[in-house]
Amino acid sequence: MSVFANTPEPPYTAVIFSSVRTQGGAVDERADDPGYDRMSERMFALAAEQPGYLGVESAHDASLGITVSYWVDEAAAASWKQVAEHLVAQARGRDVWYSDYRVRVANVTRAYGPGGLA
Amino acid sequence: MSVFANTPEPPYTAVIFSSVRTQGGAVDERADDPGYDRMSERMFALAAEQPGYLGVESAHDASLGITVSYWVDEAAAASWKQVAEHLVAQARGRDVWYSDYRVRVANVTRAYGPGGLA
Repeated sequence: MSVFANTPEPPYTAVIFSSVRTQGGAVDERADDPGYDRMSERMFALAAEQPGYLGVESAHDASLGITVSYWVDEAAAASWKQVAEHLVAQARGRDVWYSDYRVRVANVTRAYGPGGLA
Repeated sequence: MSVFANTPEPPYTAVIFSSVRTQGGAVDERADDPGYDRMSERMFALAAEQPGYLGVESAHDASLGITVSYWVDEAAAASWKQVAEHLVAQARGRDVWYSDYRVRVANVTRAYGPGGLA
């Protein structure tokens, strides 16, 4: 399976979530937090069940994590933000897991890969 | 210094570059390629000198790298794509460094952090 989200031709919506874990967020510290890993896996699975979900891409290193989720439109992305179980995870993220983060909601207008337009 | 791009209030433009390195792109293999590291550092420095540059965020793990660069508008992002030295790096990326990638150009409409609106 491709690590890339299988997004259609634009337009669609991207939610860019950039985060720094508490305690510096180092990879080896993260392994000591099964609660975080369980939540993270559960959120990926739950997002994939939502209406309008297109896919997700995620990369994490010692200093920063970036997860980009893709949605058919801003309304679908906004609905995912309000899913009850996700609200609980967001609160725990703010209180415990993340020392800081940014969320940016953006409308994709153009996409391409090595072979040209996606 | 913050690892987050110091972006202003939206609107602005995000270029989401997701990439898989050749040979699986594992972190320990990457360390063996000083040409890639030099190019990467040079491109971060060169991008920062371009008109309309707002900042960049980047995270890489064994399976995927995600770099998001932020620009005042789509025109500024498009100009950076055409900078001569960057065109050379893009060609070398396609031919040598990346087994696959996606570029998505998106207009940020909303941004927030733990404290509310960014």
